[in-house]
Amino acid sequence: MAEQQKGTKRKLEEREDAAAGKTALYSYWRSSCSWRVRIALHVKGVEYEYRAVNLLKGDQLDASFERSPLRQLPLLQVDGVELHESMAIVNYLDETRPDPPLLPKDPKDRARVRAIVDTVACDTQPVQNLRVIKHVAALTGRPESRAEWGHHWITLAFEGLERQLAETAGRYAFGDEITMADVVIPPQVYNAGRFKVDMSRFPTIARVNANLAKLPEFARAAPDAQPDAQQPAA
Amino acid sequence: MAEQQKGTKRKLEEREDAAAGKTALYSYWRSSCSWRVRIALHVKGVEYEYRAVNLLKGDQLDASFERSPLRQLPLLQVDGVELHESMAIVNYLDETRPDPPLLPKDPKDRARVRAIVDTVACDTQPVQNLRVIKHVAALTGRPESRAEWGHHWITLAFEGLERQLAETAGRYAFGDEITMADVVIPPQVYNAGRFKVDMSRFPTIARVNANLAKLPEFARAAPDAQPDAQQPAA
Repeated sequence: MAEQQKGTKRKLEEREDAAAGKTALYSYWRSSCSWRVRIALHVKGVEYEYRAVNLLKGDQLDASFERSPLRQLPLLQVDGVELHESMAIVNYLDETRPDPPLLPKDPKDRARVRAIVDTVACDTQPVQNLRVIKHVAALTGRPESRAEWGHHWITLAFEGLERQLAETAGRYAFGDEITMADVVIPPQVYNAGRFKVDMSRFPTIARVNANLAKLPEFARAAPDAQPDAQQPAA
Repeated sequence: MAEQQKGTKRKLEEREDAAAGKTALYSYWRSSCSWRVRIALHVKGVEYEYRAVNLLKGDQLDASFERSPLRQLPLLQVDGVELHESMAIVNYLDETRPDPPLLPKDPKDRARVRAIVDTVACDTQPVQNLRVIKHVAALTGRPESRAEWGHHWITLAFEGLERQLAETAGRYAFGDEITMADVVIPPQVYNAGRFKVDMSRFPTIARVNANLAKLPEFARAAPDAQPDAQQPAA
């Protein structure tokens, strides 16, 4: 009952925010997809309120979070609406705040950038996310299968990502300007680190990631810079 | 050696095609992502040559298919380039062949359409695709875990997809015009059928899919209409 009241109160507050045009991001510090949206918001210079949702405690499943059709992060309140799915949000921000652009002008170049995005956003992250890994461990009954699973799929996908970046990268993923392709790279490389993927096999990905880490917009979006950041368990 | 020669010969032929501006789709009849691109090509009225790649035989891994950075289908030769990643291709077709448009004009509507697309293209299909399911069966040692896995993830994702479509659908996924959201639905519902997902729980998805099936562009893109279609094994 207390939970329900809390949920109802939060809902009302949030409706008022949305009506008032306040920008607010529902995020978890280590969520890859929240991180992508944080990068885009910082690159576009959009001020926003940070609203922590603790994925480990299952807060995304509580009644106050019914607004997200998939009960997943991130969710962005912006311009009077609520948007979900990280790359749909990034595309929205790029269409409504075109400076600096996150896509090149030539449709062929845009297709290359989008293919890099989807290599991470479709072929890599969804297969190694928390809920899938938990399910794998439950199926096998072997806790170590979590680490093996993540390592296997990220390594396989990074072989394809490395081949793409070897053709397209300059200082960043596609030439020397920031694009949507750069938005997805730091969270995925961070996950690769958690699963002990050998990054020496992927020199272009590692180089691009190191260049991105030097940018203040990217540094401000990193997990450790978030208000809900915690010391990770060993 | 014979294989290598075949690979080399195919490569040369294909380079000539690309230079000549011929449109060719590398596809497998039952591949969800190939199917999405077939739908978009038919909706846009683009003539193309169908090039079958047998995923079950592993043809996508042979030397002649090095062009695909992820060794995956689909791959589209178009306008002198080769594009991969299904939704990057669909976006390219929409940008270069704008009639009929596959995205609404309002950025908020576009974000809703893209969120539906990503619910399928990121949250559903990648988790239940052939290579993941094979890996799960190898891990568990139980052949029946293939079916359980597919059923579990599609059902979970369809709960979120149904909530979205209940708000957005008209005759099709987003109102009464065909959008990118419709491109991803028939292949995913087909997969749901293979995994015996109870579609009576998802009436909006089922209705939209039935409406799409009546359109000739969609019928021509369906698996059974492809030159490499085979009688499925029991």
